Formats: sequence, structure tokens, C-alpha cells
Amino acid sequence: MSAFLFTPQAAAATLAKIRAAAPLVHNITNLVVANSTANALLAAGASPAMVGAEEEVAEFAALADALVVNIGTITAPQARAIALATRAAQQAGTPWILDPVAVGVLDFRSRVAVASLADAPRAIRGNASEILALAHLHARMAGTPPTGRGVDSQAAAAEALAAARGLARASGACVAVSGATDFITDGTRVARVENGHEMMTRVTGLGCSATAIAGACLAVEPDAMAACAHAMVLIGLAGEMAAHAAAGPGSLQAGILDALYRLDGGTVTARARIGIVAD
Amino acid sequence: MSAFLFTPQAAAATLAKIRAAAPLVHNITNLVVANSTANALLAAGASPAMVGAEEEVAEFAALADALVVNIGTITAPQARAIALATRAAQQAGTPWILDPVAVGVLDFRSRVAVASLADAPRAIRGNASEILALAHLHARMAGTPPTGRGVDSQAAAAEALAAARGLARASGACVAVSGATDFITDGTRVARVENGHEMMTRVTGLGCSATAIAGACLAVEPDAMAACAHAMVLIGLAGEMAAHAAAGPGSLQAGILDALYRLDGGTVTARARIGIVAD
Amino acid sequence: MSAFLFTPQAAAATLAKIRAAAPLVHNITNLVVANSTANALLAAGASPAMVGAEEEVAEFAALADALVVNIGTITAPQARAIALATRAAQQAGTPWILDPVAVGVLDFRSRVAVASLADAPRAIRGNASEILALAHLHARMAGTPPTGRGVDSQAAAAEALAAARGLARASGACVAVSGATDFITDGTRVARVENGHEMMTRVTGLGCSATAIAGACLAVEPDAMAACAHAMVLIGLAGEMAAHAAAGPGSLQAGILDALYRLDGGTVTARARIGIVAD
Repeated sequence: MSAFLFTPQAAAATLAKIRAAAPLVHNITNLVVANSTANALLAAGASPAMVGAEEEVAEFAALADALVVNIGTITAPQARAIALATRAAQQAGTPWILDPVAVGVLDFRSRVAVASLADAPRAIRGNASEILALAHLHARMAGTPPTGRGVDSQAAAAEALAAARGLARASGACVAVSGATDFITDGTRVARVENGHEMMTRVTGLGCSATAIAGACLAVEPDAMAACAHAMVLIGLAGEMAAHAAAGPGSLQAGILDALYRLDGGTVTARARIGIVAD
Repeated sequence: MSAFLFTPQAAAATLAKIRAAAPLVHNITNLVVANSTANALLAAGASPAMVGAEEEVAEFAALADALVVNIGTITAPQARAIALATRAAQQAGTPWILDPVAVGVLDFRSRVAVASLADAPRAIRGNASEILALAHLHARMAGTPPTGRGVDSQAAAAEALAAARGLARASGACVAVSGATDFITDGTRVARVENGHEMMTRVTGLGCSATAIAGACLAVEPDAMAACAHAMVLIGLAGEMAAHAAAGPGSLQAGILDALYRLDGGTVTARARIGIVAD
Repeated sequence: MSAFLFTPQAAAATLAKIRAAAPLVHNITNLVVANSTANALLAAGASPAMVGAEEEVAEFAALADALVVNIGTITAPQARAIALATRAAQQAGTPWILDPVAVGVLDFRSRVAVASLADAPRAIRGNASEILALAHLHARMAGTPPTGRGVDSQAAAAEALAAARGLARASGACVAVSGATDFITDGTRVARVENGHEMMTRVTGLGCSATAIAGACLAVEPDAMAACAHAMVLIGLAGEMAAHAAAGPGSLQAGILDALYRLDGGTVTARARIGIVAD
């Protein structure tokens, strides 16, 4: 039964629900990707709003259908706003997702990211390094032994998945690890998505767009793991379609928005590469 | 006589004046649209500058040919900067325009927007919901009965126009209401503009670009209502031209900049859909 | 011997080194260009990170391979962050470059820019007005007679070059003056670059991208003057290639990223217009 959630048809159904509901997605994000994230959400059919002031975030997180928190250009005022917003989201039942950009590299953002986990994110999306670092920091704070011990190029994917499972169990959030293959886990089940294109790593903020679209999916799909997996399908497939015609990362950035806008259920059903690894 | 101001020829003349004068347009805007707004102004022939610090805005608002204030990602420091800038603009005679993004939805920005009206904006541009909300808030603050009572899908356009007329009379600003048809009023006269394309609602910040271009028009055209109407023609026509060739909102965003840059007087004269509704 | 540094072959070699090393470029930049700057660095092969908080910049500037400081939307918190970052960069030996956007126009940023010179930038890049203003302000602060006396349209290029030489000698930084012809000087030697296209002035932030790419070049090329000259070649050549196919500034903005990504050593060697004026 759960396996149906991880099929091309289920991803197509989530896209249709986004377009029908146009969920209001509240973003507290970094200043590099504010424009591209808003455009990705609009192109997919959601209603984005970038509201980041301490004076406004709690009020807005309670109104919104989902909250997206991204620490890419974190500042002290933004850290205070994030704390207010995630608290309000938890209390109002607004699902929220964390994008822990560069967690583990710099101390201030590491503390912000770990602290936010207390407000029960529905999901976390990062690359392998970020998920490894966040799992390690969270385990250290909780006094439990970390799952992994740093990154090794051969072992990276497997080690990140083990860390992701541990982090999911410890935090209660679904964890998505982006890469050539994306892995999504709730601590028990593991799904994989293989859509995407390597040129996407040469456009800034496409990971942030993936997280934001996962926010839109969380607003319409109650299974957080399915929501994350479907988001990885949608952005990955848009990237594949756009890369086919792109002369480079500049035309890819615009082309992904065009592709998200034009993406239809038939294409998703035909081209989504999604499945269950462990159930 | 006034009717000539609301003709395709007058809109073309304003574009020519922008290109000849390259007015310096000071923007205090939201972080989502800072790049796209600067590019829209450059493409149209103006000289944009994004200066938002409390330490600099008063000095710069006095130097500039027009000031554009947009509260889309308002913060407390930015609210203080806006107050300094609008005061300086009023004292220096710099025309300024307000874009009250999402006013009425969140309390903090509502107070900022209403307070700014004391510094005599030359114009206000928003969508129907924003103009209805701002008119209501301003009337409540002034102790006068509001013109409208919330939004109803059938009555929205007519009701927003009534609210816009009331807001224009009460504030002294020309008010532009964006939509499938744009209405622009100084409280007595009403003009309408019918350029534009529905795909423009899927690109973030094109309303903000419209406001910024209205700022450039205010710098060269003394009739504020004509300046706003001409701006709606220029951005709407650029949107139409770009939508014709766009595969989606990503290529539309780039295409609108190309179209603004290439727009010539002959095209404006031939394709502007502008006229007077009430004189 | 030094002359080889200012050849098309040397510029091509620097591009190859960026792609091989993928230097980590720390940017403290303005909010208008954060996205386009990150994308320009990614397209060229570098690894950008936009880290601007007081809590993080010193830690990160010490880790990075180069630091880029841009004061285009300076605020008081950002000014404090810049002071921390440039100090840390100097102590750690991280080469850093200053983009003094609109220095001389507004008092606050002028003081920030001049103060930063005490932390020994490896390079400074600006347009003629900015370099004239910064040279004048620095000389006034040092109590030495300024080299130039304001801008005159005929004399501008020559006067800016004289100011640039004086500023380079006084500050110890290489100074690059952007224009139809770019001049780069260390106070003694002068190189010129003639790549570029006039439509580039209609896209916001391409000067900022040039500075950021110069940061990437400083990470891999020890001669700061050569690094700056090579950066002017790379961005200028990308602009030429993109302008050839662009319908306007919107497609030019995307096209420059595509061109940076596709730029190969053979094209650089064939089309770079770089040379030594004074040695």
C-alpha cells in the first residue's frame, strides 16, 4: 500500500494537487535564491511568499500551508525569526521543512540548524555532506553515538544514507539526501529518485528550489516522505527536460522554470524514476 | 486636453523622455526583486540604484529623480530607512511611489504602509486586494467610513476602483490598480490600460517592476496619473511581446527585459491599449 | 618575462587553473547581484559561497581561497562584517578584492571603502568614477595631494588611469578600471583589455561579476595584476559571445553564464584582446 506513494503516478497526482490547491508556501530563505525560489514555486503552481522579519513570521507561518526554512545566508536577526516561525508552525500544525545549507562548516549556522529540530520539522533536505554533518551534530547534542564518521569519497552515499536514517529516527523528520541519486527516508523506509542532470550543479540554488517545492508538496501530501520524493521527481525531471535544450547554466536556470510550468501528468508518469529501496 | 495624456502617443513620448534623461531611480525594495527591478529599469533606459541603509537613504532620496518604496520583505531597519527616505523625498521634491505588497495581510507592514502616506507619495500601485486593504486601513486611521468591505470575486474590480478613488482623494496620491485591466485614478479621473498577458502572474515581481517603471515615468512626466498609466502600458506591452515567444515563465522573465530594451515609439503607438474611462 | 602574464595564453591558463582547482570564493556582496554573482562563479568553474553575517565571516574568510567585498547595498551590520572579514583574510593570507560600488556618492559607503584599505586588499575593481573617487578619498585621508580633480568626459579615461596608478601605489593593491577599454595597474605596470560589449552596461551587476571572477583568478594566479586582467578578459569575452546572439539584456544575462560555462582555452587564446601598455 505504501509502495504506491513512490510511483510515477503518485508524483503526478501530487503535482495535480499543487496546481489545484495553489498552496501558500511561506519561505524564510537566503538572499541568493529568493527570486529563483519564488519563481520555481510559481512555475509549479504554488503561491510563494517570502516573509522573513521577526515582526511578521509567526503570524504568517500560522496562516501558510507550509513553511520552508533555509539557512544559506543566516544572520542573527534571521535566526531569531526562524525560531519564532518554526515555533508558530509547530503550534499551528503548518508542516515545515529545513534546508540546512552548509551546516557543519560554520559554527553559528550549525547551532541554528540543530536548535530548530526541537520544533519538529516534517522534513529535512540537504546534500550528503550536510546530512552527515547535521546527523553528527544532532547526535552529539543528544549524547548518542553518531552514525557516521566524516566523509570518504567511496563510502559517501552509503554513509550519508545511514546518517539520514539515524537523523530521521532521532528527529522525527523525513530526510532527503540529494545527489546523482536522491535518497529519501523516514528512518525505516527508503525511497530513491534518479531524475536530474549534472549541469544542475552549475546553477546556484536548485537544491533550495527542491526544498521549496518539497514544501509545496508537504502542503498537499500528508505522507512527508512521499512529498519529498515527489518534489525530487518534479525538480529533477524539469532539470532533465531543460538540460536537453540548454546551452549552459544560464539557459538552464530559465529553462527549468519553463519546464516546471509545462510539466504535465503524462510526462511525469512516463519519465519519473522513483521507487522503494527498503520498506 | 487632459485626454491626450492617456493616448498611445503620450505613452511613447514618456518612453522617449526616459531614454533621453536616464533618470536616477532610487529603490528601497524587497530582496526577491532587487535584481529583476534593477534590470527592468536599465532595460527601459533609466538608471537604477538600490540604496536601503538608514545611513544612506535620506542623502540619496534627495539626489535621485524618483524614489520607489516596496514593502515586500519589510524589516524593522528597513521600515526606519523608508521613513527617513520618504521624508527626505517629500522635502526635496523627489516624486515617490509606494508598492504596498501584501498590505492588510500582516500587521507590521500594514502600519508601515499607512504611516508612509503622511509623506505624500505621488502614486501608489498595487493589486485589487492591496488597494482595498490600504484604502480600508487609511480610512480607519482617519476615522472616516471605508469605501469597500472585503473582496468578492464578482465585485472585486468595481469595488477596488471605488476604493482606489477614495484612497486617491484621501491621500493625494494617484492610485493604480493592477489586474487583467489596470485602472489608474487621481480620485476624479479614471484611466484604463489593457496591455499585459496572463502568464505574467507566474513570474515573481513583475508588479514590482511595474511600480519601478512608474517611478521612472514620474521622474519625466509631471502628471502622476499619466506617468502610472504609461508605465502600465510599457510593462504590459513588454509582457505581451515576450509572452508571444516564451516557453514559460523562465523565458518570459528574460524576454520582458529584452522587450523593454527593444520597445520603440512606433510599437507603443500601434499597440498601447490605453484610454480614459472618466474625466 | 612579466609580459607573458598579459597574453591570451596566460588568460587561458588561468581559466584552466580555476576549473582544475574550483577555488572557494567567499563573497560579501550586495543583494542585487548575489544570485548572478554566484552563478557567474559557478559557470566559470569556481565554488562560490555568499556568507555575510558578523557571526560567520571571519571564520569563513580564513577558510576560503579568496574573498570578494562589494559595498553596493552596504548597511551598518554589513560594514561590521566586512571589517571582520577583511581583517581575517589579511591575517590568514586569503587574497581579497574590493568592489567600491558608488563610492564617493554617499558618505557612509565612502568611509567603509576607505577604511577597508587598511586591511591590504590584493586588488580593487571599479569604473572610472569609482576609482577617481576612491583615489581622492584615500589621498585626502592620508594627507597627500589627490591625483585627479573630478570627472570630465574627454579626460575621464586618462585621468582615471592616473588616479588608479596613484591609488595602487598608495594602497598596495592592483587597481582595475572598467570601461570600453579596461585598464589594470599595480602603480607601475599598466595592462589593457578590450574585450566586452556595450550592451553589458544594460545588465545590472556585470561589474560585480567581473570583480567576483577576479577573486577566483586571485585564488589561482599569484600576480594580482595578471589575475585582474585575466578576469576582465573572461567576463568581457563571455559578454561578446553572448551579445552576438542576445535579443536584449535579458537574454544577455543568461547568455553570459552559458558563455562562461562553455568558454574554452582555444577561444580565449584566439579572441582575448589583452596587452601591456606600460611595463
